[in-house]
Amino acid sequence: FNPLLADFKDNLSKVYEAIEESDFLAIDGEFSGISDGPSVSALTNGFDTPEERYQKLKKHSMDFLLFQFGLCTFKYDDTEEKYVMKSFNFYIFPKPFNRNSPDVKFVCQSSSIDFLANQGFDFNKVFRNGIPYLNQEEERQLREQYDEKRSQANGAGSLSYISPNSTKCPVTIPEDQKKFVEKVVEQIEDLLKNEESESLELEPCTGFQRKLIYQTLSWKYPKGIHVETLESDKKERYIVISKVDEEERKRREQQKQAKEQEELNDAVGFSRVVHAIANSGKLVIGHNMLLDVMHTIHQFYCPLPDDLSEFKEVTSCVFPR
Amino acid sequence: FNPLLADFKDNLSKVYEAIEESDFLAIDGEFSGISDGPSVSALTNGFDTPEERYQKLKKHSMDFLLFQFGLCTFKYDDTEEKYVMKSFNFYIFPKPFNRNSPDVKFVCQSSSIDFLANQGFDFNKVFRNGIPYLNQEEERQLREQYDEKRSQANGAGSLSYISPNSTKCPVTIPEDQKKFVEKVVEQIEDLLKNEESESLELEPCTGFQRKLIYQTLSWKYPKGIHVETLESDKKERYIVISKVDEEERKRREQQKQAKEQEELNDAVGFSRVVHAIANSGKLVIGHNMLLDVMHTIHQFYCPLPDDLSEFKEVTSCVFPR
Repeated sequence: FNPLLADFKDNLSKVYEAIEESDFLAIDGEFSGISDGPSVSALTNGFDTPEERYQKLKKHSMDFLLFQFGLCTFKYDDTEEKYVMKSFNFYIFPKPFNRNSPDVKFVCQSSSIDFLANQGFDFNKVFRNGIPYLNQEEERQLREQYDEKRSQANGAGSLSYISPNSTKCPVTIPEDQKKFVEKVVEQIEDLLKNEESESLELEPCTGFQRKLIYQTLSWKYPKGIHVETLESDKKERYIVISKVDEEERKRREQQKQAKEQEELNDAVGFSRVVHAIANSGKLVIGHNMLLDVMHTIHQFYCPLPDDLSEFKEVTSCVFPR
Repeated sequence: FNPLLADFKDNLSKVYEAIEESDFLAIDGEFSGISDGPSVSALTNGFDTPEERYQKLKKHSMDFLLFQFGLCTFKYDDTEEKYVMKSFNFYIFPKPFNRNSPDVKFVCQSSSIDFLANQGFDFNKVFRNGIPYLNQEEERQLREQYDEKRSQANGAGSLSYISPNSTKCPVTIPEDQKKFVEKVVEQIEDLLKNEESESLELEPCTGFQRKLIYQTLSWKYPKGIHVETLESDKKERYIVISKVDEEERKRREQQKQAKEQEELNDAVGFSRVVHAIANSGKLVIGHNMLLDVMHTIHQFYCPLPDDLSEFKEVTSCVFPR
């Protein structure tokens, strides 16, 4: 359970609303470091061309993490004749989402960390409960993973879907697994006969054995039972089989899809706020904000392009004004 | 004020004592990451030669930070016929020590950080209040910095020392600084005349102006006043001049040296514990401890050598048993 993520999800509609109703926005990021080469005052100077400045920061500043993002929305109140401000503070951390998700490495610079520590920065909020994020390519990949998992499940005869690809004939079961599969089938026969029992939990087994079970049951019981793989506290995977009618099966399927959608939204996490800023087309202001813009694009959109003109193009998409 | 560092200093003699009286020691480190390349299970395997394993870990694991060091000491109690254990837990962070100290960059791996977060690891203790450290080369450099500062102060005519090099003749003062220096001299004349006043605080000024003041006063008042540069809360440097006799001046000088020695000890910080372990020659045990040994040597002794045989030599110095 991540209280900051829960809080983020609970308040996301308020953030969207504040962005939508605003006249302009202000942003500010905190980073785990500034320069992995020379000190930032030695790195850049007033004689840099824009291209040089961009190349220097891209080379020496992008391995750090933007781990706090501040957003203020400003709306002019005509009656009161003053600006009404709403401010939001997001702690951000690339918590690995599942076994396939990127294991992000980022650099910390001790002087920057020490500066933030002196300002009372709460590192536990970042590292224990930071909100995750994905850039657009990672989001696409994760969507594909979900789609693939679903279609594989169909192909392997997941009983959650009635798929044209599901196995329609007996599967070949290796000699040494026959006893195991037979025992499972017996257990299911008992379940179906027993009117008092609604479901059955199988012992944890290997991934190959789970595949055999899915294939066998898909062929033997095309309808009438629901098969699902769950994970125990000890991260052991086990299969649960339950009696369901067609309607119940559809309901569970929808539930599962809704859960997957929520998992996906959670993984996209803070990037959704950046998308909302981008889509709003609102004026975005900031102080000394080149690094903020570069990190925002780099973390939440795409790797930074090679040259300045492309960077300007990307920037005008994410921050049109 | 760093409560963990204060606690560390208060308890260091207990740690030394526990190491000295022990029959053997156990150590364990926590790192900000394990591998910046392939996952650690893909990085190393059972067919690695020792040289291969060393090279792989040196290449892919040394940019992470060892930020917690656990030490247990075990002593056999003959009367009770059992081992008595003392355990110590050190949070470690390379807080920049002064403007010349190394600004360490280290990598974090989000899966490792997430693992530690799930174990309840307190990142604030590390990043706000971790104990600093220096390797042997950095310690040598810092000692040299102090020595140099002292001899420079002498050369520039610090009145804290009677140095044979101190200026014995009027210094050349640029035209545009003459008024400034004259005003300072007037203030000092007033101080010396005024029996009720013991000291005088000058306005903050530039480093060049401070140098002129030191040189002028060293020549004009070879004895009888104490000149010291202090730093305000706003990090502005200003000079304080006070009337002192020879004895008082020596006392202050010793005080200053003792303070410098303490600063140096603080900067060497946790490395002092590792030196104590090394010097004790006690048996050191650990579980799966190659990375612990490599990080310990890398952070607190010296950069890791290029090949395994040299690494073994260094290791047998730091952990003779």
